Amino acid sequence: MAMKGILRPGLVQIRVMDVEAALSHYVDRLGLYKVGSDAGRAFLKGADEFEHHSVTLVEADTPGMDFIAFKVMEEADLDHFEARVRAEGIAVAHIAAGEQPGYGRRISFVAPSGHTIQLFAHAEQSEPKPDLANPDIWPVEPHGMGARRFDHMQLNGVRVPETLDFFTRVLDFYLAEKVDDESGAPIAIWLTCGMKAHDVAFVDGGVPGRMHHAAFELADWNAVGHAADIITKYNLSIDLGPTRHGITRGRTIYFFDPSGNRTEVFAEGYTYYPDHPVRVWDKQSLGKGIFYYQRQLNDNFMNVVT
Amino acid sequence: MAMKGILRPGLVQIRVMDVEAALSHYVDRLGLYKVGSDAGRAFLKGADEFEHHSVTLVEADTPGMDFIAFKVMEEADLDHFEARVRAEGIAVAHIAAGEQPGYGRRISFVAPSGHTIQLFAHAEQSEPKPDLANPDIWPVEPHGMGARRFDHMQLNGVRVPETLDFFTRVLDFYLAEKVDDESGAPIAIWLTCGMKAHDVAFVDGGVPGRMHHAAFELADWNAVGHAADIITKYNLSIDLGPTRHGITRGRTIYFFDPSGNRTEVFAEGYTYYPDHPVRVWDKQSLGKGIFYYQRQLNDNFMNVVT
Amino acid sequence: MAMKGILRPGLVQIRVMDVEAALSHYVDRLGLYKVGSDAGRAFLKGADEFEHHSVTLVEADTPGMDFIAFKVMEEADLDHFEARVRAEGIAVAHIAAGEQPGYGRRISFVAPSGHTIQLFAHAEQSEPKPDLANPDIWPVEPHGMGARRFDHMQLNGVRVPETLDFFTRVLDFYLAEKVDDESGAPIAIWLTCGMKAHDVAFVDGGVPGRMHHAAFELADWNAVGHAADIITKYNLSIDLGPTRHGITRGRTIYFFDPSGNRTEVFAEGYTYYPDHPVRVWDKQSLGKGIFYYQRQLNDNFMNVVT
Amino acid sequence: MAMKGILRPGLVQIRVMDVEAALSHYVDRLGLYKVGSDAGRAFLKGADEFEHHSVTLVEADTPGMDFIAFKVMEEADLDHFEARVRAEGIAVAHIAAGEQPGYGRRISFVAPSGHTIQLFAHAEQSEPKPDLANPDIWPVEPHGMGARRFDHMQLNGVRVPETLDFFTRVLDFYLAEKVDDESGAPIAIWLTCGMKAHDVAFVDGGVPGRMHHAAFELADWNAVGHAADIITKYNLSIDLGPTRHGITRGRTIYFFDPSGNRTEVFAEGYTYYPDHPVRVWDKQSLGKGIFYYQRQLNDNFMNVVT
Repeated sequence: MAMKGILRPGLVQIRVMDVEAALSHYVDRLGLYKVGSDAGRAFLKGADEFEHHSVTLVEADTPGMDFIAFKVMEEADLDHFEARVRAEGIAVAHIAAGEQPGYGRRISFVAPSGHTIQLFAHAEQSEPKPDLANPDIWPVEPHGMGARRFDHMQLNGVRVPETLDFFTRVLDFYLAEKVDDESGAPIAIWLTCGMKAHDVAFVDGGVPGRMHHAAFELADWNAVGHAADIITKYNLSIDLGPTRHGITRGRTIYFFDPSGNRTEVFAEGYTYYPDHPVRVWDKQSLGKGIFYYQRQLNDNFMNVVT
Repeated sequence: MAMKGILRPGLVQIRVMDVEAALSHYVDRLGLYKVGSDAGRAFLKGADEFEHHSVTLVEADTPGMDFIAFKVMEEADLDHFEARVRAEGIAVAHIAAGEQPGYGRRISFVAPSGHTIQLFAHAEQSEPKPDLANPDIWPVEPHGMGARRFDHMQLNGVRVPETLDFFTRVLDFYLAEKVDDESGAPIAIWLTCGMKAHDVAFVDGGVPGRMHHAAFELADWNAVGHAADIITKYNLSIDLGPTRHGITRGRTIYFFDPSGNRTEVFAEGYTYYPDHPVRVWDKQSLGKGIFYYQRQLNDNFMNVVT
Repeated sequence: MAMKGILRPGLVQIRVMDVEAALSHYVDRLGLYKVGSDAGRAFLKGADEFEHHSVTLVEADTPGMDFIAFKVMEEADLDHFEARVRAEGIAVAHIAAGEQPGYGRRISFVAPSGHTIQLFAHAEQSEPKPDLANPDIWPVEPHGMGARRFDHMQLNGVRVPETLDFFTRVLDFYLAEKVDDESGAPIAIWLTCGMKAHDVAFVDGGVPGRMHHAAFELADWNAVGHAADIITKYNLSIDLGPTRHGITRGRTIYFFDPSGNRTEVFAEGYTYYPDHPVRVWDKQSLGKGIFYYQRQLNDNFMNVVT
Repeated sequence: MAMKGILRPGLVQIRVMDVEAALSHYVDRLGLYKVGSDAGRAFLKGADEFEHHSVTLVEADTPGMDFIAFKVMEEADLDHFEARVRAEGIAVAHIAAGEQPGYGRRISFVAPSGHTIQLFAHAEQSEPKPDLANPDIWPVEPHGMGARRFDHMQLNGVRVPETLDFFTRVLDFYLAEKVDDESGAPIAIWLTCGMKAHDVAFVDGGVPGRMHHAAFELADWNAVGHAADIITKYNLSIDLGPTRHGITRGRTIYFFDPSGNRTEVFAEGYTYYPDHPVRVWDKQSLGKGIFYYQRQLNDNFMNVVT
């Protein structure tokens, strides 16, 4: 099919209190690769990603997410979406090429949920990335948990119904699944800009602009089990898992980086198509939707955000 | 992203000499569900598919594929593609709604490779299909090999370069991988209409319109191993596997239905995006591309088609 | 090596309040096979077991375990162990052949922990069981969770140090792992009579003769994940998992039968040899020992027994 | 049960033409650890083994196996088996403690098949080995294929019936499976000294004392798939697999070290007990017995030995 506009989550900038400690988490344990650094920042990627980097760790006093940037298909998409976003009465800022090494210009705006969303059309490629000539299945043997790519985020914020409208009507996302409250208003939404079961999720958290977790893709349930073995071996702080999500059907573990940002390793999930009906969860089934095996939420999951 | 036009392979009609024997293969072993039948035909689907059926088995004197039909996003796409195809000087036939139970009208034409390609916009839904309200991960417990959906086909035919041009320029497919001969001309192409690593592959086989295999999706490598156990337990005719493809990175087994049509069970494969560079194999690496572990082709794979 | 005496756990009799409901649990879900029944009892087995049955479900007013019976190598072992047990001042009862269908005579005695332990030398074989001539890997395609055999039990009771002495000195078991309290006295012991990491575990529960769980073997971590999918699909009552044990390294889920007896599905575990040193856990590491990923115990695990 | 005598395969000495190249194979790829070296020899082990080393690579002009050594339970077993072997009219040599670093004295003799068999009772421990106090599931994060231990060998030689008699009557092994020729005489035997489905196999190869393969244990089918990925990534010479054995039910790949010695990675296999009936294969089913999915032998497997 003709695929235009926003392709995928491409870059997240995460605030950490100690970059070196964070590198141990994201590189040695999670399995990403460090491709560069500058004053107070480190740039990481998964070996299955072409772009220069997909995670920027930036030293800060508080944890959390500065922004998530989505890659669009072509340069003209930036102007197209800038106009659309402005038409909503939302300000759009311009970020010059080179602010992130290897990255072209980006546009930036704040979604109704309170999160900073960015779009970019160009990024240089960096190693490791998939080979193109008679490729092996990976360019380098995986290490640690073997995370292949930055996959998606869950963002807790405000104004979920308006956020749903904004992402679907203005940014051409699709609603794959949602949780409705008793009145039928969405309190949690799983949005996809392609054929993954989700690329970003928004949950009503009462406070704007919070990060619930950044998720990285593993190969399968077996890799999720291996990730759990690593979490205990190195005494990482675990939240929950290994388990499965009812929503997206993904296999998952939640755990924390040394600054308290929640990391998810995620595998499988179903294949979404834009003609699929929306899957709807009622509020009392949310526990099963989030933690399919436990069928109940835990306090950490609901209340700990950065 | 905005996704328009051809979504996915939706239906294949396979000729079999004995429908009952074929049902044992596709239902009891592969794990599909029979949703109906009429004189000389049986209609099957995977439990992860919404549409009425994705496989039609039709009794015939010779094995092979009658047609593969792709689902488009909306009714208007049928007219749009009909005009485009006619503009190539290719005849387009109309197939009335109801020719297949539960299916709306289809358009039909012959690709340069010699295969009959169809498009449809509407199909009724049938059980089993994914639940929509507080869904479990499957509507029914999987059986047999647990095939979840009709995934893709490999079609051996003629005029591969023209077929590549037709599918990418006229039908909006993307070229994910290809094998070039010494002159740089493509002799095998892996095409996707979405984010799967491929939805259809064409290989230069010297004869138009042949079927190499119909592939069905399994969950993962473990399911591929279980499929292999079933193949031997029931003494099915195996071609090769369990192995991995270098091309698409998929996990695979090839085996044969009782009429000699090749079935593939396929899992994993990478996530494709339309901004990805094409992966190119040279002819002497084709063995590794097809059978990543064995790194050489076998005669069956090259010569047995239906 | 020459292997003599007690071979393995061979039979457990579990009290259930409703045999039909229990059959749904143990047969349809867990994947055992019903090989017979009589008034108030049903007899089940795994397809990887040769003996007539390995689980007897008996209708009763309260849940729990009536006895666990171990198979010995030969008839003379029964007399040998009867003499040894009597020499401890423990009474030994005789149970006539045929009390359980297909079973020869058994001897029965009460261990210091308060549990009824039995030994038998002969049982008829029943279907399904492994083929012997050009065998397939299973005699019948697995169903449900695919449990292959009755694997082990955890029994909560009293007098753990005396139970350890009795099982190792009198019955020739080996101590694979233990948890010591602050004084160095064992409060939990994992005993093996062969090369599995454990065949029976005893935990100090303050009350004699209680059943903590009966465990059944699955193939691997993937099968454990599939078992979890089944547990939620059919809304079975889960205790904890999927997770791993630090003790034995096994992969596990705990869940409950309709009468409240805890069932474990268990996979992997290390290979034990009688020259291996004992692995010792201190009391504050017990959480990690039991639930390796969570690294803490839950109240259910500690307090719910039958 | 009381387990006495020969416990397990403990040490194999393999001849290689280039020790450095062999270290890349056995350490970097297979996942063993080098624990020492001396002139012309390197000593390796798996992280799940306690003893000092389980593989000795020794530089030589031709590949093959110098000896396989089994660990016995206690010192007295050496004298016991020496007497038994001598009673067969077979010479027994004494090898002094320290000939292999960390090893106590060994006895050595030649089996009817033409292979040098050794026994030892004592070996020092070395790192990495399983932790004993609140152990993690591995002492170090696995690398490469993640081989956990030296598992078993297949030895091709002569006089298979006499070898079967010798190993079962004199050395207390058990016959788990065998292949009979048309006259009912065994031409291939799978022998276990414990509860693994086999510890050593002998196949009639027409020539005494040849090595078919040395096998190392992987965790499961998923690890076998990962091993296959590594084999192709590093362009190792593969023989066959990933597949399953009908005999033992193990999951397997055969590939070659740089000197041409066949290595097997092996996972799963059933749990054997000494009261199990022998599983018997007829000669025309040998293909299915060896390569369960392919159901036919290849020439390499039959003819390439070292």
